[in-house]
Amino acid sequence: MNAPVTDLATTQQYMLAEEPYYRAVDAETDVYEAAYAARMPVMLKGPTGCGKTRFVEYMAWKLGKPLITVACNEDMTASDLVGRFLLDADGTRWQDGPLTIAARIGAICYLDEVVEARQDTMVVIHALTDHRRVLPLEKRGEQVTAHPDFQMVISYNPGYQSLMKDLKQSTKQRFGAMVFDYPPADVEAEIVAHESGVEAEVARKLVQVAQRSRNLKGHGLDEGMSTRLLVHAGQLITRGIPASDACRMTLVRPLTDDPDMLDTLDSAIDTVFG
Amino acid sequence: MNAPVTDLATTQQYMLAEEPYYRAVDAETDVYEAAYAARMPVMLKGPTGCGKTRFVEYMAWKLGKPLITVACNEDMTASDLVGRFLLDADGTRWQDGPLTIAARIGAICYLDEVVEARQDTMVVIHALTDHRRVLPLEKRGEQVTAHPDFQMVISYNPGYQSLMKDLKQSTKQRFGAMVFDYPPADVEAEIVAHESGVEAEVARKLVQVAQRSRNLKGHGLDEGMSTRLLVHAGQLITRGIPASDACRMTLVRPLTDDPDMLDTLDSAIDTVFG
Amino acid sequence: MNAPVTDLATTQQYMLAEEPYYRAVDAETDVYEAAYAARMPVMLKGPTGCGKTRFVEYMAWKLGKPLITVACNEDMTASDLVGRFLLDADGTRWQDGPLTIAARIGAICYLDEVVEARQDTMVVIHALTDHRRVLPLEKRGEQVTAHPDFQMVISYNPGYQSLMKDLKQSTKQRFGAMVFDYPPADVEAEIVAHESGVEAEVARKLVQVAQRSRNLKGHGLDEGMSTRLLVHAGQLITRGIPASDACRMTLVRPLTDDPDMLDTLDSAIDTVFG
Amino acid sequence: MNAPVTDLATTQQYMLAEEPYYRAVDAETDVYEAAYAARMPVMLKGPTGCGKTRFVEYMAWKLGKPLITVACNEDMTASDLVGRFLLDADGTRWQDGPLTIAARIGAICYLDEVVEARQDTMVVIHALTDHRRVLPLEKRGEQVTAHPDFQMVISYNPGYQSLMKDLKQSTKQRFGAMVFDYPPADVEAEIVAHESGVEAEVARKLVQVAQRSRNLKGHGLDEGMSTRLLVHAGQLITRGIPASDACRMTLVRPLTDDPDMLDTLDSAIDTVFG
Amino acid sequence: MNAPVTDLATTQQYMLAEEPYYRAVDAETDVYEAAYAARMPVMLKGPTGCGKTRFVEYMAWKLGKPLITVACNEDMTASDLVGRFLLDADGTRWQDGPLTIAARIGAICYLDEVVEARQDTMVVIHALTDHRRVLPLEKRGEQVTAHPDFQMVISYNPGYQSLMKDLKQSTKQRFGAMVFDYPPADVEAEIVAHESGVEAEVARKLVQVAQRSRNLKGHGLDEGMSTRLLVHAGQLITRGIPASDACRMTLVRPLTDDPDMLDTLDSAIDTVFG
Amino acid sequence: MNAPVTDLATTQQYMLAEEPYYRAVDAETDVYEAAYAARMPVMLKGPTGCGKTRFVEYMAWKLGKPLITVACNEDMTASDLVGRFLLDADGTRWQDGPLTIAARIGAICYLDEVVEARQDTMVVIHALTDHRRVLPLEKRGEQVTAHPDFQMVISYNPGYQSLMKDLKQSTKQRFGAMVFDYPPADVEAEIVAHESGVEAEVARKLVQVAQRSRNLKGHGLDEGMSTRLLVHAGQLITRGIPASDACRMTLVRPLTDDPDMLDTLDSAIDTVFG
Repeated sequence: MNAPVTDLATTQQYMLAEEPYYRAVDAETDVYEAAYAARMPVMLKGPTGCGKTRFVEYMAWKLGKPLITVACNEDMTASDLVGRFLLDADGTRWQDGPLTIAARIGAICYLDEVVEARQDTMVVIHALTDHRRVLPLEKRGEQVTAHPDFQMVISYNPGYQSLMKDLKQSTKQRFGAMVFDYPPADVEAEIVAHESGVEAEVARKLVQVAQRSRNLKGHGLDEGMSTRLLVHAGQLITRGIPASDACRMTLVRPLTDDPDMLDTLDSAIDTVFG
Repeated sequence: MNAPVTDLATTQQYMLAEEPYYRAVDAETDVYEAAYAARMPVMLKGPTGCGKTRFVEYMAWKLGKPLITVACNEDMTASDLVGRFLLDADGTRWQDGPLTIAARIGAICYLDEVVEARQDTMVVIHALTDHRRVLPLEKRGEQVTAHPDFQMVISYNPGYQSLMKDLKQSTKQRFGAMVFDYPPADVEAEIVAHESGVEAEVARKLVQVAQRSRNLKGHGLDEGMSTRLLVHAGQLITRGIPASDACRMTLVRPLTDDPDMLDTLDSAIDTVFG
Repeated sequence: MNAPVTDLATTQQYMLAEEPYYRAVDAETDVYEAAYAARMPVMLKGPTGCGKTRFVEYMAWKLGKPLITVACNEDMTASDLVGRFLLDADGTRWQDGPLTIAARIGAICYLDEVVEARQDTMVVIHALTDHRRVLPLEKRGEQVTAHPDFQMVISYNPGYQSLMKDLKQSTKQRFGAMVFDYPPADVEAEIVAHESGVEAEVARKLVQVAQRSRNLKGHGLDEGMSTRLLVHAGQLITRGIPASDACRMTLVRPLTDDPDMLDTLDSAIDTVFG
Repeated sequence: MNAPVTDLATTQQYMLAEEPYYRAVDAETDVYEAAYAARMPVMLKGPTGCGKTRFVEYMAWKLGKPLITVACNEDMTASDLVGRFLLDADGTRWQDGPLTIAARIGAICYLDEVVEARQDTMVVIHALTDHRRVLPLEKRGEQVTAHPDFQMVISYNPGYQSLMKDLKQSTKQRFGAMVFDYPPADVEAEIVAHESGVEAEVARKLVQVAQRSRNLKGHGLDEGMSTRLLVHAGQLITRGIPASDACRMTLVRPLTDDPDMLDTLDSAIDTVFG
Repeated sequence: MNAPVTDLATTQQYMLAEEPYYRAVDAETDVYEAAYAARMPVMLKGPTGCGKTRFVEYMAWKLGKPLITVACNEDMTASDLVGRFLLDADGTRWQDGPLTIAARIGAICYLDEVVEARQDTMVVIHALTDHRRVLPLEKRGEQVTAHPDFQMVISYNPGYQSLMKDLKQSTKQRFGAMVFDYPPADVEAEIVAHESGVEAEVARKLVQVAQRSRNLKGHGLDEGMSTRLLVHAGQLITRGIPASDACRMTLVRPLTDDPDMLDTLDSAIDTVFG
Repeated sequence: MNAPVTDLATTQQYMLAEEPYYRAVDAETDVYEAAYAARMPVMLKGPTGCGKTRFVEYMAWKLGKPLITVACNEDMTASDLVGRFLLDADGTRWQDGPLTIAARIGAICYLDEVVEARQDTMVVIHALTDHRRVLPLEKRGEQVTAHPDFQMVISYNPGYQSLMKDLKQSTKQRFGAMVFDYPPADVEAEIVAHESGVEAEVARKLVQVAQRSRNLKGHGLDEGMSTRLLVHAGQLITRGIPASDACRMTLVRPLTDDPDMLDTLDSAIDTVFG
């Protein structure tokens, strides 16, 4: 059984065609480049919608490497990552999973929301994320040595962390961790204006609303409003929906069903935009 | 492996043939059109039987877009949404799931009762509902870029919400939320009369009974009587069943088995119709 | 892929060949006919063995419609109802499930003991039981529009209802509910005599025993003795088994293993027959 | 698809070749014959090893009917009872399960230790055990009408009954129940002597030991010693193992690991045989 | 479908080629031979590593019968024991499981660590272990009558027994039980010397260490040191590892991670060997 | 069915091409060689990242034996270890699993993080790890006698041990146990300098930070910082990232999300490097 031919076309499919919009906040791109130079596995920690996915897209573009993203979920099996035999007209045919493709072509492999996956599914990445840098395909009887460009990146939101869903120490201790948060107010307003087309003043007000909600995290809200939601609000406002209605629909109603919290957040909107 | 050909016939199958009956209450159609213009994912929140499904059918008809509806359930796997390989006379053949078809043809994809699905099944929609608008078909090794007309809509009944069954923040924060409730009394009576053929006076009385039951929500009833049930009562009344019997059968017995609650609701019927 | 041909033979197989014995108690046949005229989904509520199944058989015969019965159980999947692909000499072949057949041929589809099924399996019937009257066969990519004669009927025993096993409000609120109970004493004695061949006097005594047991429901017994068990007792008596032995074997021993309850029920038999 | 041909050979395979040894205690054979005459489903209740299986074998032989026995277990699916499609050189082929075979050929179908099966697997027998006497093979689209000779028998040990494992009332109320217990001392000694070859005096002593253990049921023992174990003891004694050793090995050590209970039972042996 | 041909080669494969080393302690071989003469099912009870497996190997060799051993585990299904259909170039082919092979060729079938198996998997052996001596292959529609030489043996360690994992009485009461324990000190030392090559004096000391640990069973240790571990210690000592290091590595570290218990056991070693 | 041909190429694939870097601390290589000489199964106990995997690689290289490593996880089935039938153009084909390959070619089989596997999956190794040294392939009807060079090694981290996840005594008592810990400070600094390229002084400081964290194990940290993480820190420092930032990213953020613990560990870094 020969190793599957990995042609140029496969690699090309995972290259980012154009520069993703990314507004750097700190030295995060330098740090990432140093980690990549050591091919150190990297963990991106931070709340939902703060730009982790965008960041890894930007770095893949900047480094000129293909990027393979896998959205993790708790039904994901090791075979979903590694590959499986498919039944074909000529019997069974092996199909590489996304992790195997990434290891072969030297892509950055990004496992998004990794705590969702069963802890033990993560065991398959162990030999890829230590000095060995190999991926044993036990079902195929092949051991894939990672391409020199290959790097593993995972994202993870500490807010979800529970006793049931956490990474094992033997997984965690394979990664360097970069911590992300919502951007500073002026940077965030710049992003919201850029992405939604609202005027700077409106963008600043939207950020003010978001900041009030973020202070309520852990005090009745599981999460504050993400930058993504502010962009949503801006998009409705630029299409003529009154700011107050747009904010209720995009910033508040998706977040909570609790009547008191709804009142609190609605008042915040009225105060800022009133 | 070529992408499956998506012919006109497929699209045509999902177009609504005639205008669905929908009685607008507020500015909800304008708001939806603004959200659609931004291709913002939309969440419809509200109690069972208040018209969420009818609304999305009406909007799909109004916008002239195909509509693909998926009734969610907790055994639904990602493959049920995305597609799977089927065994054919010539080996395996890929079959797109409803979400994939919707992404290819530019349909509105409506996931009904989304809290029923396993949280993590929902992870497959993440890349479709942020700036990426792509659907990775990992098993097929294909990445589907959504058609420009594609939009995601989900429905969800906050009354069912429990610790075990709620959407994750990282899912919620991808949607604008439109809140639905039972219509105002006069509008609801108009709907009941239109759909069941009862006279206006009888329709008004049926709405009165329903409103009493809705006040009992959370005080012995899980839900109040829906508009749909009022239509059922009207249908029996127009076929000669006495109002009191028709209401017991269609409004009360389906709702509860609790003897005290049965008495309370039966008295309400007698008071209104007596 | 063409829709499966549904020939006359299929329909014929589900027609009742002869009039089932059914002894009407009240206006239940009229009410059912009005519900059927509106094609309203109907829920039959009542204790085990009180005649719900016999009633729906009788109504199907009276209306001249085919009847498809499905005994629900908690391992039933949506595919068991809707259909599945089978592997054939020429690859996969679709086989309609009983619900799909019923929708195609315009049968009354009777889901017996529906609370046994997983709540969410029931979600597949939602689009069939509201204004849409369609059944989406997602795996086949076909949407079946129900035949104009199609009607959905479910049975359900409130005595089994528990926190774990109840229908969802969004399912319940699609049905009109008809409540069944054991027949009045004289009607029940008539049924027992007719079905088992015992004399009227013996039948009346068997009903007396049953009524005592029904008063113990919730006070040591999960259920009282059903009409079916009285027929069993009668059948043994007509074959020469002493009434006291026949009643112990058919009315008491199947119901309980509790020694006190056994004594209580045995005394009831001795009192009535002694 | 034609119904499978059920040839004479199939029936012959399930006929008992010779009269099973059965020592009647009471009128149980008359009662069973009356129940069979009415084709009433029968439930055999009693402790392990008291002769339920032997009884149904004897009755099948006496009535000259084939007997199909199924040992129930909690992994048993409805398909294990009813049948399934098997993949063949020419595609799929249907294979009847034991319940279907019994219904076709008119056998007595004996479900041994029925409480082990999942409650809801039992739902498949419902239509076979009421006035309908049919078995719907939903996967095959066939409805099997039971042969006039078909009868359903189940066994069940009330000692195992727990909240988790009990039959549903809607299942129980389909059966007449025959209660079994260990035979009277002289009958049991006769059986032990007949089956093991020990002398009458030794057999009587073995029964005395057993009776002491049966008094301890619920007081440290889950079950007393069964008749089968007494036969085991007798078999070792006739092969020259000292009675005291034989009893310890066959009557005591299999029953319990509790040191106090071991002492108590060992002393009982020494008292009786000492 | 013909019964699979069971050729001489199959039987030969399960014959023990040479006499296993077994050091008899008591009359256990006579008792086993009497039980085998009656083809009585036998249960071997005793702690891990005390020689149960070796004993049954020895008896199979002594009786000149083939031996088929199955290591039980909780994922073992009935099909793993009984057999299954495999897909072949010519469709499905039946493959006998180890229990079926044993029943056909007249082997001693040894189910090792039977409490690990799901209770109900054990139900498949019921008809093989009472007067019937048959194995119904329901999926194949065949009933295998056991070869006259067939005998069932199970092993089971009462120390593991818990509420969740115990055999059912209806399973237990099919077996005669032989109780095993670690051999007397002098016999055990003889075994350790024979198997590891250490001198008699060292072997005696190793047994002394083991006996101290066995007194701690239930007082901080789940099990004492087995004979097998003493052989391990001896093997390292004969290869030049100091006795104290060898004992720590083979007798203590595998047994426990508890710091106090480690100290206690290490001191015992120092005391005995110091 | 012939045994699969195991050619030289298979063996060659598992030979280590070059000497792995391993810094011996004590007499561990001698002890291992004695255990290997007796083919004694060996258990490597110790915290994550302390060098267990590296050690077994080194020993395999030193002994000139092939090494097959399996990362265990809780979804691993016995078939994943032992092998399975795959569907081929010519029907089913057997494929050996890694354990079977190791037994055939005489490899050292290393089961990494064995507590992750289901206890009972481990039962398949029992006959390979006692005097029998055989692996029964029940599905294939073959019994593999282990190659004389075969040895079983498992790793296991006592820190993870819980009531739910521990090895059974009957598994543990098949292994000699070698205990590993982080190396002494000077040895560890030597390793860190060698692997990351930092200067000796920096390496010593990194070890100091690690030691402080290891004292917090069980007092707010599940594990202390592993040697691997120190190497990560060194790699970033040699690429110009300030030591303080490099340590935060690689030593602290991967370990914990607890704000107090983050402060404590950050101060430790500042103290050591400040």
